[in-house]
Amino acid sequence: MSDYSTYELGDFTLQHGATLRGAHLAYQTYGTINGDASNAIVYPTWYSGRHWDNEWLIGEGMALDPAKYFIVVPNMVGNGLSSSPSNTPPPYDRARFPAVTMYDNVRAQHQLMTERFGVTRLALVTGWSMGAGQTYQWAVSYPEMVARIAPFCGSSVTSEHNKVFLEGVKAALTADEAFRGGWYERPPTTGLRAAARVYAGWGFSQAFYWNRVYRQMGYSSLEDFLVGFWEGFFLDDRDANNLLTMLWTWQNADVGNTPGFDGDTVKALRSITAKAVVMPAEKDLYFPPEDEAWACEHIPDAELRVIPGIWGHFAGGGSNPDDTRFVDQALKELLAS
Amino acid sequence: MSDYSTYELGDFTLQHGATLRGAHLAYQTYGTINGDASNAIVYPTWYSGRHWDNEWLIGEGMALDPAKYFIVVPNMVGNGLSSSPSNTPPPYDRARFPAVTMYDNVRAQHQLMTERFGVTRLALVTGWSMGAGQTYQWAVSYPEMVARIAPFCGSSVTSEHNKVFLEGVKAALTADEAFRGGWYERPPTTGLRAAARVYAGWGFSQAFYWNRVYRQMGYSSLEDFLVGFWEGFFLDDRDANNLLTMLWTWQNADVGNTPGFDGDTVKALRSITAKAVVMPAEKDLYFPPEDEAWACEHIPDAELRVIPGIWGHFAGGGSNPDDTRFVDQALKELLAS
Repeated sequence: MSDYSTYELGDFTLQHGATLRGAHLAYQTYGTINGDASNAIVYPTWYSGRHWDNEWLIGEGMALDPAKYFIVVPNMVGNGLSSSPSNTPPPYDRARFPAVTMYDNVRAQHQLMTERFGVTRLALVTGWSMGAGQTYQWAVSYPEMVARIAPFCGSSVTSEHNKVFLEGVKAALTADEAFRGGWYERPPTTGLRAAARVYAGWGFSQAFYWNRVYRQMGYSSLEDFLVGFWEGFFLDDRDANNLLTMLWTWQNADVGNTPGFDGDTVKALRSITAKAVVMPAEKDLYFPPEDEAWACEHIPDAELRVIPGIWGHFAGGGSNPDDTRFVDQALKELLAS
Repeated sequence: MSDYSTYELGDFTLQHGATLRGAHLAYQTYGTINGDASNAIVYPTWYSGRHWDNEWLIGEGMALDPAKYFIVVPNMVGNGLSSSPSNTPPPYDRARFPAVTMYDNVRAQHQLMTERFGVTRLALVTGWSMGAGQTYQWAVSYPEMVARIAPFCGSSVTSEHNKVFLEGVKAALTADEAFRGGWYERPPTTGLRAAARVYAGWGFSQAFYWNRVYRQMGYSSLEDFLVGFWEGFFLDDRDANNLLTMLWTWQNADVGNTPGFDGDTVKALRSITAKAVVMPAEKDLYFPPEDEAWACEHIPDAELRVIPGIWGHFAGGGSNPDDTRFVDQALKELLAS
């Protein structure tokens, strides 16, 4: 897990004006770049995810086969491996870490792909959740470079309802006095656990809980799932300021805010030249299929494929074999086209 | 609003063993009881609601017409008017207020209806949300007394997903150190505001926010809605311990826990003799229509009528005229049958 590379971004000026000095991206690669550098895939991470959390979709015989493709997983800024509140020295450390947009993340990834690897064309960009948001952003920021995109369980613009869900997570986390406006010396674990409990209702669908599917995941009761899976998730080396940095990126995501589009999301979607397969999950509570159907109306070459079933947002998380097969099959067809 | 009556329950022993000494129900009545006491309707309150919050469904020309019916709105235990943590003297005050079930609430209401008003038959029991839960409980606890029920946007048993949603609300509220385990001297407003923000994502549907319907309600922006409506809601004389008392009642609601049914929810539903019209809202995020379809499968004489539209849980809150007409029309047909 600690086996990854670092790309130095140097003094990286962000869309909202701050300059992150000594910024860096942590990333991992799978497979080998071919002679004409035509087999590269970018597969960004999701909210609080690390590169190793993406590996379930990579493997022999899968669409993302390292024998065929050169797959790069860049860690999102703020996730604790790439530049983050938790690893940035003063004065931009901790609560002073600046606002980072999807556009910033993708610009950093673009620098990595072009300058380190000399890649000028990507066979595919794909990702789950905020990884899907970065996927959309790639297609808007660098249309000449992106041949195909496959965002799953994510969106091109964060809906108002999604923002509200995240407000709840943020409010719970920061209600803990131990958070101290971000200047904690010890983790605000009460707030982290509260945020986990708020998140729990959103991550999986009503039907997932009705059918107690968490038992298949090895949890013995509802409370065991809330503590063992959810609280464990938020306490697993997740720094509170890091979580809030990524939460800001998420709440403010909108491909329309790419320079040149002046806030016009539809115009940005229309500018996408990549062939797109868009995969929301049927019962995703914060990225509902309707929103992605709307996006597909505006992308010139887009196909909507709804992941069926009851796993909700976590249909794209790699825990349910049926959903993994669905996503993998779609990627295979898209890469063959 | 302060114009209501009080019924003394005396020493009221609760299902979980505590005795609330000097317990009371606050209630309001609308209309006049007729000669043979055959026109009584019970219309219980919802989570944190007060009797006046139910009045939108009562009026001339409506199904609940005070010219025809004697409508009693009992305040739920814990809502600050009936016996509650905030108004009970030591030793059962505040954080020591005992666990109260739906069964307890309805038993207290039964005492009010039979002993104060001499009513032995109810034309209808109806209610929204936790009021719907009390409605189901009436039909199971006193089948010989209840002719008709119309629960809307609520359930006979709290689903696991619904419990998780409430865990998030509770965790946010209690993460505030000012809560002090319930022994606060001043309201834990940070926690109350955090709970409000958590609740905001659940109360209305994704489509409600997508279409910015809050503007119709007089809110100028998303943040204005979060502060003006939601935080205002949770700060409007809502005591934290009261909220947690009602939350416990909600999380533990199950008609199967009525004495005699031994935890068997289906058996309890099968025992219902009332004619039922069950009205979940199409996009209710915590009382989804599937759950009520399931309940209707087990109630001998039940009709499912899904309230269409995008207001989510608040379809039953009285703010959207279309939804109000839908509920009122169903009540008219049910009362005429």
